[in-house]
Amino acid sequence: MSTANTPAASKDVPPGGAFLFQEVGASPIVTPETFSEEQRMFFRTALQFSHEQMLPQADKIEHKDNVLLRELLRQAGELGLLSVDIPEAYGGTGLDKTTSLLLAEAMGLNGSWSVTFGAHVGIGTLPIVWFGNAAQKAKYLPKLATSEWVAAYALTEQGSGSDALGAKTKAVLSPDGKHWILNGSKLFITNAAFADVFVVFAKVDGDKFTGFIVEKDTPGFTVGPEEHKMGIRGSSTCPLYFEDARVPVENLLGDVGKGHKIAFNILNYGRLKLGAGVLGGMKLQLAQALRFAQERKQFGTPIAHFPLSREKLARMTALIHALESMTYRTSGLVDARLAARDKSAPDYESHLLAAVEEYAIESSIMKVYGSEALWQLVDDAVQLHGGAGYIEEYPVERAYRDARINRIFEGTNEINRMLITGMLLKRAVKGDLPLFAMAGNVAEEMARGEKPQARTNDALAPQEVAAEAAKRLALHGLSLAAQTFGPELEKHQDVLAALTDVVMDAFALDSMVARARQAATDGKLDPVRVALIRTIAFDSTSRIQDRMRRALCSTLKGDALAKELGRLGTLDTFTPYDPAEVRETVMAAVESAGGYPFAA
Amino acid sequence: MSTANTPAASKDVPPGGAFLFQEVGASPIVTPETFSEEQRMFFRTALQFSHEQMLPQADKIEHKDNVLLRELLRQAGELGLLSVDIPEAYGGTGLDKTTSLLLAEAMGLNGSWSVTFGAHVGIGTLPIVWFGNAAQKAKYLPKLATSEWVAAYALTEQGSGSDALGAKTKAVLSPDGKHWILNGSKLFITNAAFADVFVVFAKVDGDKFTGFIVEKDTPGFTVGPEEHKMGIRGSSTCPLYFEDARVPVENLLGDVGKGHKIAFNILNYGRLKLGAGVLGGMKLQLAQALRFAQERKQFGTPIAHFPLSREKLARMTALIHALESMTYRTSGLVDARLAARDKSAPDYESHLLAAVEEYAIESSIMKVYGSEALWQLVDDAVQLHGGAGYIEEYPVERAYRDARINRIFEGTNEINRMLITGMLLKRAVKGDLPLFAMAGNVAEEMARGEKPQARTNDALAPQEVAAEAAKRLALHGLSLAAQTFGPELEKHQDVLAALTDVVMDAFALDSMVARARQAATDGKLDPVRVALIRTIAFDSTSRIQDRMRRALCSTLKGDALAKELGRLGTLDTFTPYDPAEVRETVMAAVESAGGYPFAA
Ligand SMILES: Cc1cc2nc3c(=O)[nH]c(=O)nc-3n(C[C@H](O)[C@H](O)[C@H](O)COP(=O)(O)OP(=O)(O)OC[C@H]3O[C@@H](n4cnc5c(N)ncnc54)[C@H](O)[C@@H]3O)c2cc1C
Ligand SMILES: Cc1cc2nc3c(=O)[nH]c(=O)nc-3n(C[C@H](O)[C@H](O)[C@H](O)COP(=O)(O)OP(=O)(O)OC[C@H]3O[C@@H](n4cnc5c(N)ncnc54)[C@H](O)[C@@H]3O)c2cc1C
Repeated sequence: MSTANTPAASKDVPPGGAFLFQEVGASPIVTPETFSEEQRMFFRTALQFSHEQMLPQADKIEHKDNVLLRELLRQAGELGLLSVDIPEAYGGTGLDKTTSLLLAEAMGLNGSWSVTFGAHVGIGTLPIVWFGNAAQKAKYLPKLATSEWVAAYALTEQGSGSDALGAKTKAVLSPDGKHWILNGSKLFITNAAFADVFVVFAKVDGDKFTGFIVEKDTPGFTVGPEEHKMGIRGSSTCPLYFEDARVPVENLLGDVGKGHKIAFNILNYGRLKLGAGVLGGMKLQLAQALRFAQERKQFGTPIAHFPLSREKLARMTALIHALESMTYRTSGLVDARLAARDKSAPDYESHLLAAVEEYAIESSIMKVYGSEALWQLVDDAVQLHGGAGYIEEYPVERAYRDARINRIFEGTNEINRMLITGMLLKRAVKGDLPLFAMAGNVAEEMARGEKPQARTNDALAPQEVAAEAAKRLALHGLSLAAQTFGPELEKHQDVLAALTDVVMDAFALDSMVARARQAATDGKLDPVRVALIRTIAFDSTSRIQDRMRRALCSTLKGDALAKELGRLGTLDTFTPYDPAEVRETVMAAVESAGGYPFAA
Repeated sequence: MSTANTPAASKDVPPGGAFLFQEVGASPIVTPETFSEEQRMFFRTALQFSHEQMLPQADKIEHKDNVLLRELLRQAGELGLLSVDIPEAYGGTGLDKTTSLLLAEAMGLNGSWSVTFGAHVGIGTLPIVWFGNAAQKAKYLPKLATSEWVAAYALTEQGSGSDALGAKTKAVLSPDGKHWILNGSKLFITNAAFADVFVVFAKVDGDKFTGFIVEKDTPGFTVGPEEHKMGIRGSSTCPLYFEDARVPVENLLGDVGKGHKIAFNILNYGRLKLGAGVLGGMKLQLAQALRFAQERKQFGTPIAHFPLSREKLARMTALIHALESMTYRTSGLVDARLAARDKSAPDYESHLLAAVEEYAIESSIMKVYGSEALWQLVDDAVQLHGGAGYIEEYPVERAYRDARINRIFEGTNEINRMLITGMLLKRAVKGDLPLFAMAGNVAEEMARGEKPQARTNDALAPQEVAAEAAKRLALHGLSLAAQTFGPELEKHQDVLAALTDVVMDAFALDSMVARARQAATDGKLDPVRVALIRTIAFDSTSRIQDRMRRALCSTLKGDALAKELGRLGTLDTFTPYDPAEVRETVMAAVESAGGYPFAA
């Protein structure tokens, strides 16, 4: 097994969204199989901390034990788990993004902890890493790296959630020029009850959206009462109030009027990380549901033996595999972009931001696909438990409630769905992605009734074809929509959302097929991987046809519509297989591993 | 509008499962449009109680205020809401089943209340109505009708949930023949903490499954601590313990060894009622989500104006309409079977049971479709709320947690899915349903590439065809599976479950189209109904194709499979329409009604 990340040369790194335009396996991708020894070791350390220090305290965490949360953060800090994204110069280790995502995965075993941890190391700390000046970095980062100080991030307000830039909190410079005077409030702020440092957005003079670093004992700044939530109850979520709060001028973060740059970059990275974060929870829930199903008997049989249970467990495993394949592929792309950069150079952060931004499409896919895969998985897990799944005593009950937040925060899934196809089209219009040219070819192929051909003639050839067909359909649909609606397309949210589902399925299939082929030894595909891909392909070929019909019906009328609907069948790449055989191939591996069979 | 129920003559009443064999609109069906004045009035009274007495107390209920629950039950009793299913001779009103379901709908506005109420009037009281002897009825029913005594039902045990007959609780006759001595325990018993009368199942001499009436102060009988649950937290759920509990011999319910008859009949009726119960919650959540979306602004626009919000609200409305159409159609069939019977005749209960049993297939459909429609609807409602949907302050958060139980109790959805197609096949094998003969015709039609033709050439003709195609596909799939697997078919759970989805979609489409046509005035279809049916048809045509592929792939191999898959397209009845137009037709009606537009 390779110990180095591929690809190495930053020039060859495919741009964001390229998966839609390139053939399956066009470039090597980073996968758990290509992780370096350091990455693996780091992951194991983090996972051990999670299993041994954090998880045994899950019940205490659930009852909002902030002292315990701080203690766990401190322990994590001692293990170096808080400083992965902090440069060495400021007390961090400045590791690669794949490692940062592996850390998020390892911390994802419990929702409350995962969100607390993520708010601290992610949205709380990164704005200072990325946009702080040298003095700010020197003052805050070493303390954040140990969690001597805990961080929070305050963007949302009562009146502005999805419309983040619609914030009403105001900042004006004090007459003596020494303070920014903040007035307003923030809502739903994670870690608020015990954080020391808050990154807060406010509008300077009422219109220039700007970031500030606010310390907890700032005069005029108070933290409101805890929200009572459906899930992640162990995490703190409170409103913040600013009444003539006096923030020292040196705590301006970045430039006046450039707060949106901070907010959007933080969101991009947060979305990418969300995919990894939910992965940890998914793997744990699979293992627990499997154990429960093996132990629980009905009709004299372990319920794990019933086909409907096995169908669920196999589907859970396939979702994990799909998400995992996309997630580390994407973090690998970010790392590859940065491979040639000098981490200690003064402009390193700007390259880092550019690299993260480059894969904003993939990151939003991680957010949407990840949160929905988790949601489906915990739902299956509850159902496998029967009545016990509804009782707090069983961890799955909590996991079910915890999971639901992921479709709402870091940008709702509606907002992210529109962003995915929206960004693709914007890049195409700018000429960065050859969407229109390729869509033209696709239209011709479809008119000729041509199906994509597999380039590799192995057991995955039909799924390679499915991936290529999904890409063609997405490109075709996007191009038709852009032609029909022009700049009005953004108002046709249902078209954008439907085509996003096709794009996501294309990315999942492409990533899984590429990964399985890369992992083949002596050209022999692992049958378990093949079975997992078939499971995903079965679901997605139906979904893709459905979404394409929706998109076309919303885009075209009359004969044009009839013509396009008629051609859709050409790219219906459904491939029959025996579901029981596929399921049993997956389940044999899952049962022998006691859970997800591809441990990193 | 008609004020009488149709059809009137019990001879013409189609048998259970007939919807799959008859053409759309073959017989008139009961729908909210055909409700009698008495039914409407009763519903309004019940709904008023729910809105004015119960809902304002929802927060108190949530905190398990058993005193309040009993007081609400008492008030309901005063209004006659507890005695609909109790015969007049025993202090009840013995109303029809449509009224009983309307009551369940009206009580469904809050999960905890709905389950508490349902356990009392349904599973708690009905075993005595249906299986009690005259003395038992005289002793218990008048008190249950007022809730002077509250009832509970104890079937489940630690080791037996889905496998209800696997109970371990034992009963032996005391040496003096005066008591049954019960030993064992029960799990997850609703109303346990404050019930006075428990219907309990135990095995006489360890093998004869039998019902008993157990009063709360029975020596040796104790109620354990409350379970902490994901939702319906206001309802009581406790284990029961029997340690040499002495139950008087006169409290034997029905015959020794005939407990399964009680349990199965209660389950059948409970499943039918579940559809109605969730309907009430669905309508309330739709109205609340609509109001929230109209009031909440982002980007300077009420979020109710965004297409992705409107898509959700329209889908919610369509699900309600589908479920409502199936539910009252089914209760109407039960009522029609009983229309000619004398309610005071000694054998009335046995006819009632037979009528309920006759529609066991439809009842299981109500259970599965209803619980999943509710679940999808509350999920959409949470999502429409954004972050607020995750906060307990907003009623939708509670509704989301409450909803989840419905897929688990009254038989899990897995068990019910297998029952639906399982019962169809059993009746076919017995010769009660012409499944194999009709499937033969279908196979020939498919071989000839023949599509079903609409018999009525109106705006719903394509959806009539979709309904007919769904039925043909279900029959064809069932017949192929039966031929292939014979008696082993029950082991092929995935095939049964996949075909059940087709059967359910067929019933939904058939019921909606028949209802809309019946409700047409001067032959003019209501465009809102047409739009709702199109919404459901769009979703279901994709799902049907997917499930048929699954079922066929699990049933056939090689050429036979290829042939059948190839023919599937003939019955792909997808009909294009402009989604925006359909959505806006629905939304105009929803917005002007402030919720579901067809108030009973
Ligand atoms: C537990 C929790 C923790 C949180 N932690 C933090 C934190 O640490 N820091 C922070 O700043 N924020 C935090 N948030 C806030 C979170 O980011 C927001 O709740 C989220 O962005 C959604 O915003 P909203 O709640 O205002 O919903 P809205 O924006 O009001 O959305 C309501 C609905 O409208 C839809 N919608 C909105 N706009 C559009 C549109 N243009 N088109 C179509 N549909 C649209 C949404 O998709 C959603 O379905 C947290 C929230 C929760 C619940
Ligand atoms: C809040 C609440 C209230 C309740 N109220 C009552 C009450 O008042 N009275 C009462 O008697 N009971 C009550 N119950 C119990 C309820 O009816 C059971 O929980 C339910 O029947 C499921 O049984 P189980 O929990 O044992 O799950 P199990 O039967 O163990 O099921 C676990 C999983 O295995 C699956 N499974 C089981 N058998 C098969 C099979 N043959 N093939 C395929 N899959 C299978 C199930 O579908 C499920 O996914 C209540 C439960 C709850 C949670």
